[in-house]
Amino acid sequence: EIKMTSFETMMEFSEFKTNADGLLPVVVQHYKTQEVLMVAYMNEEAFYMTVKTGKMTYFSRSRQSLWVKGETSGHFQYVKSLTIDCDKDTLLAKVDQVGVACHTGNPTCFFQPIVGTDYDETNPLQVFESVYATI
Amino acid sequence: EIKMTSFETMMEFSEFKTNADGLLPVVVQHYKTQEVLMVAYMNEEAFYMTVKTGKMTYFSRSRQSLWVKGETSGHFQYVKSLTIDCDKDTLLAKVDQVGVACHTGNPTCFFQPIVGTDYDETNPLQVFESVYATI
Repeated sequence: EIKMTSFETMMEFSEFKTNADGLLPVVVQHYKTQEVLMVAYMNEEAFYMTVKTGKMTYFSRSRQSLWVKGETSGHFQYVKSLTIDCDKDTLLAKVDQVGVACHTGNPTCFFQPIVGTDYDETNPLQVFESVYATI
Repeated sequence: EIKMTSFETMMEFSEFKTNADGLLPVVVQHYKTQEVLMVAYMNEEAFYMTVKTGKMTYFSRSRQSLWVKGETSGHFQYVKSLTIDCDKDTLLAKVDQVGVACHTGNPTCFFQPIVGTDYDETNPLQVFESVYATI
């Protein structure tokens, strides 16, 4: 199944405020469940690749290279929407996630609660997923 | 109404990986609507203040000082949960937001769509909020 969709952006990368590494932080959220899946970073090339291909593409800080999410795992993230924040220094991406977002096999990279109880009341299975992740 | 709740953390700040500025990015999400409200940054002091007081406290990069969210606006964010991600370099905070999160008066700092259509299907009012924000 080919779900490729090309988009056009209403704002150019040069209008964004990048961080000390020259990168733009991106919060990635599942467009249906609203679960926050991960945070990654884009450079200019990654941003335009994402817009053009409809597949989330990042700049890998560890590998210092372009990173098409799902390229090796098959766990692609298809773009539903991109929204910039008020001071134009953070992007919010709503995506359709194939498989899981996290390289550990967890649905989301945020699976280690450190304060309070973090579970989605609309998804009773998630509390078991959290328990499973720690054993 | 005093909603103060003190927490204990299961992980210390020294276990986190901070960014090039020595800070920890925090994704702030409404615990009920799951809406992503903003991204801000914590230093060690801000993290422990947040845990101790139950009110989201950040390190303001522009003012280079501790920033109790809502201190001047009254728009406090009460901690429901804090979750660290797989590589311990990003925090997810689920909060009970008093009033609005954004200094512009928008409910969320992410109100400028640049690609696709970003609205919460579970909240039909939100599309009007977006329109209202641009006029």
